[in-house]
Order: sequence, then structure tokens, then C-alpha cells
Amino acid sequence: MGMFNAKAYSASSATSPLAPTVIARRDPNENDVQIEILFCGICHSDLHYVRNEWSDVLPTVYPCVPGHEIVGRITKVGSAVTKFKVDDLAGVGCLVDSDGTCPSCQAGLEQFCPNQTLTYGFPDKHIGGVTYGGYSDSIVVNQRFVVSIPSNLNLAAAAPLLCAGITTYSPMRHWGVTAGKKVGIVGLGGLGHMGVKFARALGAHTVVFTTSVSKIDDALRLGADEVVLSRDANEMQKHAGSFDFILDAVSADHDINAYINLLARDGNMTLVGAPEKPLSLSSFGLIFGRRSVSGSPIGGLPETQEMLNFCGEHNITSDVEVIAIQQINEAYERLLKSDVKYRFSIDMVSLKSE
Amino acid sequence: MGMFNAKAYSASSATSPLAPTVIARRDPNENDVQIEILFCGICHSDLHYVRNEWSDVLPTVYPCVPGHEIVGRITKVGSAVTKFKVDDLAGVGCLVDSDGTCPSCQAGLEQFCPNQTLTYGFPDKHIGGVTYGGYSDSIVVNQRFVVSIPSNLNLAAAAPLLCAGITTYSPMRHWGVTAGKKVGIVGLGGLGHMGVKFARALGAHTVVFTTSVSKIDDALRLGADEVVLSRDANEMQKHAGSFDFILDAVSADHDINAYINLLARDGNMTLVGAPEKPLSLSSFGLIFGRRSVSGSPIGGLPETQEMLNFCGEHNITSDVEVIAIQQINEAYERLLKSDVKYRFSIDMVSLKSE
Repeated sequence: MGMFNAKAYSASSATSPLAPTVIARRDPNENDVQIEILFCGICHSDLHYVRNEWSDVLPTVYPCVPGHEIVGRITKVGSAVTKFKVDDLAGVGCLVDSDGTCPSCQAGLEQFCPNQTLTYGFPDKHIGGVTYGGYSDSIVVNQRFVVSIPSNLNLAAAAPLLCAGITTYSPMRHWGVTAGKKVGIVGLGGLGHMGVKFARALGAHTVVFTTSVSKIDDALRLGADEVVLSRDANEMQKHAGSFDFILDAVSADHDINAYINLLARDGNMTLVGAPEKPLSLSSFGLIFGRRSVSGSPIGGLPETQEMLNFCGEHNITSDVEVIAIQQINEAYERLLKSDVKYRFSIDMVSLKSE
Repeated sequence: MGMFNAKAYSASSATSPLAPTVIARRDPNENDVQIEILFCGICHSDLHYVRNEWSDVLPTVYPCVPGHEIVGRITKVGSAVTKFKVDDLAGVGCLVDSDGTCPSCQAGLEQFCPNQTLTYGFPDKHIGGVTYGGYSDSIVVNQRFVVSIPSNLNLAAAAPLLCAGITTYSPMRHWGVTAGKKVGIVGLGGLGHMGVKFARALGAHTVVFTTSVSKIDDALRLGADEVVLSRDANEMQKHAGSFDFILDAVSADHDINAYINLLARDGNMTLVGAPEKPLSLSSFGLIFGRRSVSGSPIGGLPETQEMLNFCGEHNITSDVEVIAIQQINEAYERLLKSDVKYRFSIDMVSLKSE
């Protein structure tokens, strides 16, 4: 199989900074598209992976190239590609392959395929080694895992839709967020701020929970109908038993029972934040109200396209701070301090100078 | 309002044994039925209440008369009673009143009514004091909270259906247990053994989890298709990702994450056991599989009648050990040691001799 060189940023160990490198990409086969990457969002997962913080479940193979919020322009298409043509805008998220035959794949829920290939760090079936992600000037992906980006969206701000967007959109659709429902968002970061935008656009009465007075104005600007200071027990009590759905995007330890008690009968709280340590769960809050707590990862390819179309119709993108790839290590340090509103997006033009 | 005397067993403090007493019941009003109690099941809640172990949420008012698994024969009906006539078999569960107007009541989900009256320990709106339960020779209840007992069922064994039965039947119906589904039951006690019978009768492939080799034969006898020793990690691993629904009836602290990992995509585990201390919940198990954990209390009146009709059709009752009311204190001690297969049922004929 033919290959070509691509510019990229990689880390060579858990303690090394990301630095310029050259990686091999396969020449597109008949079902592949080759994409010139224009922007790549920075997900906290990238940082976990680079620093080998998930060594128990996904030990990092070095050198590693992270990035799974990829937006670009198609530069080549394989002979069997029907969905795309050269010059189309295209996106790639967390997945670049799956078996296509399991019940999850058949249902368009590739995020649950037991034989999926993540965009970075999974065995590369085509050229060996592991898959390399979007901190690069190009990527080659089977058309099945490529989505269309609506042309009216700002591309830098659209990149985070491929992970932060679908991760928050999918559980809202799954648990029936619609007009007339009351929806809470816990944790106003990269994921949470997308949750606010989606809940509002889906027509729900949207309430943001925050520990910080300083976030109230921003929450309202993003579309919240109300903001509740979660440390104010009286304020919390006013909302007891009233929420149809709560999206919990907090990745630190926190008291989920306080939020479960705010759910209405049959209400659901979905966790998308994945705190490292187990959470403390009181069964009483679940029993009295037949409430549920669930989790949700990204979404399948059909739903990812649906989400992007929805974003096109409602002109929804992420709030981003655009950086050059040369600022990546500094951006990681700021990410650790939640010092970004609300997502970094790498302008890959900056990679041309390397 | 007229009243009459009823024989009962009550406790006069958290440390007193239950002992014979006489209590007042109201004369039935136009919508009431008066029931001669024939059997009353012993629920662990009775013991918690008698010993004031729920003082935080429902402090016990003494003297107290527990019992909410009541089966008997109607001896009087009010002038507006249409559902029942004298000599009908009737049951009363955990509820004896609700507001009838809230959204939950309108939906036939009286178990979630914010103004419900529990069968014991709640303010008695008719004659003052608190409501007295089924450890008595009679009870007077609004017809709306009285259900019919199919005539083919053994009455002693039918009594526990009013709490243990509906508590396990309701979540199975709510979460879609049907033929072709794979269902797990954790905790083979008063609740769990009913769960096995219902899962099997609903047509599901039924798997019992137990820590004890000694329970295997009994689980199979009750209807389990398979029994898994939950301490055997290899056995557990064979079932990873395969369950549509798991009913968790364990009231002690235990590792729910081990069971969550056995759920299939979109699988649900419902807690009905209410451990005193919070459980440890790993978000990863929920996220990878979009699984959910929920809780469920009893059921509404329409569903309780549906459950009893289902039991009539499938000849399902509880496995009971019938005792005289004079054995109640000994039965409580045995209950604490889980030394009962699987529910005590008090033969109220024994109360006549007091």
C-alpha cells in the first residue's frame, strides 16, 4: 500500500511536550477520502492520552498524535466514494472504523461497536502501528466515518462539534429533550457549554448549575433561561423534583445525589464527564421518583450527521479560542486550569511553517 | 365519626416487643370497605419502622401497628362502593390514600403522589393519630386503595404480593421485560424470589446471582434458567454486556459496578433494596454502553391490580412460612438473619385468641 508523509505534532513520552514530526498516512483506497485538516479542537481526552493517564484501559503508544475534533477539506476521494467529492467540507470525530456488522453498527450506533477503531491510539489495520489523530495537516479515513460540515458554520468553531457537540447532543435526543421539558446542565466547560446551546435550541427550559457567581452572565449569554448556584441549598430546594433531564458534564468528584433529587418522576441524569474515582450514589433518590442515572459516550455516525445538520439550521457552534499549533503545550496547561472559553481550536495553517 | 375496636399487635417503643393491644378503626364511610384481615405478610420495612430505624425521614409514632401486605375478606361496604361487595377477597398494600388530583395520581401512579398516606405511620385524616397497619383483625380503607385477590391463589402466600410482589413486578414492566430478554436477579430474599418468578413468567431468560452455593438449587426451583456465583470473576465475565435488565434487591452494601458491567447496550439495573449507605458508582460502566441505574418503589393501584391478575393467571404467589401473630417477635429476629424462605405470613386467626 502506498503511503505519503504528513506533518504532525506528536509526543514521544508521557512527560515530553508535543513537538513537530512527520508521520506516514496511507494513500486513500477505493472507499477512503483524504482530508486537508483545517482545524482540530482540543479535547481533554487528548491530554489524558498524551500523558498516559488512561494506562489501565488504553495505554499510550508513543510517539502519539492526538486530536479527534477534525474539520477540513477533501483533497482526494477513492474510486468507490459516493458520499463526497474533492473540495467538500468534511469532519472526522472519535471513530475511524468499526466492524460494520455487529448489532450496534447495524443500528448506526458505531460508538458501541466492540471492534471499533478510535481516531488515535488504536491499531492501524492499513499500515501498522497505531492510528494518528488530527494534530496533523491531513488524514485519510473511510467515507463511512466522515461527515459533512454545513457550509454556513465557522470552521474553527465547528471542529469541537465532532466530540463535545455529539457527546452532549446524543443523550439529549436519547432521553427525549424537547420543547416543554426542563433541562439542567451541570459543569459549564467544553461539554457543558454545548449542552446549554443544544438544550435551548431543542426548545427546553434550560437551567445551568454553577458553583461560581462569575459564570452567571456567560451562562445566560450561552442561552440559559435560569442559573442556579449549586452551593445554595435554598436555591436548589426550589427546583426539587422538577427536572426532566440533567446533563452532568463534571469530570471531578461531586455530589450527584443533590442533582438526582431535582429530577421529576422518571427523570434522567446522564453523566458524560467520567470522574476518575467512583461517585457516591444514594439509592433513595432513585427509588422515590423512579429516577435514573445513566452515561453516554459520543454518538453514532448517523446521529453525528444529524447533529451537524441541526447545528447548521440553528447556527450552533462551539465558543472557541483559536490557537496556532505552536501554542499547544501552553494550551494544555491552561486546559488543566479550565482557563478556556470554552474550547481550543488549532488553526492548522500554522503547521505549514514547521 | 363512629369508631369500633379492633384487635392488633403494637410496639410501644423502639426497644419494646410487639404485644397485643386494642386500636380504634373508623366505621366505614360511603367510599370505604371494611376488611377482616386473614393474612398479613411481614416486610423488612415493618421492622425498620417498629425500631425507629427511619427516624430521619419517617420518625415512628408509638404505639405503632405495622403491616402492609394485607389480604382479607370484605365485611362491610359503604353506600358509594361500586368495586366490591361483602365477602369479596381483597388486598391492601402500602398506600391507603392519596390526593387523587396530582399528575401522578391522574396517571395511576399513586406511589409518587406527594400527598399520599402510607398504610401505617402517617397522619390519619379520619380519626386522628397515625394510620395503623395490618397486624390487626380488621382495617377500613377507601375502595380506591383496595384491590381484588384472584380466588385461585393461596391467601397466605398471596399477602406478600401487595408489597414484595408489586415492588418487583413494576420495574420489570416499566423497563420492558418480555420474552426474549435476558434478566438478572441480585439478592434472593423476599423481593428477589418474587423477581425470579415474575421474570420467568414474563418469558425472560432468568439468571440469579448469588454469593452462596447453597442457594443454587432453590434458585432453579423458583424458576431461574441459570445461577451465577457472583464472587466468581470468571463466571461473571462470561455474562459481560449481555443483560437487558437486572433487578437489584440487595439491601446491604455491595458492588453495583460489577453488575452494571453485565448490562447490554441501553440495559437498565433497577435498585429496589435501598442500602442504608450510599453505593459506589463508576461512571465508566454507565458511559460505555449507555447503561442506566434506576430505582423503583412499589407501584400504582392500577398496576397492583394488573400484577395480581397476572399472578392469578400464572398461579404465582410468594413462598411463605405461615406463623401465628404470637411468633412475631421471634420472626423479626429470624428476619434479621435472613432466616426465612422467603416471606413470613401471619395467619390472623391466631389473633382471635388474644
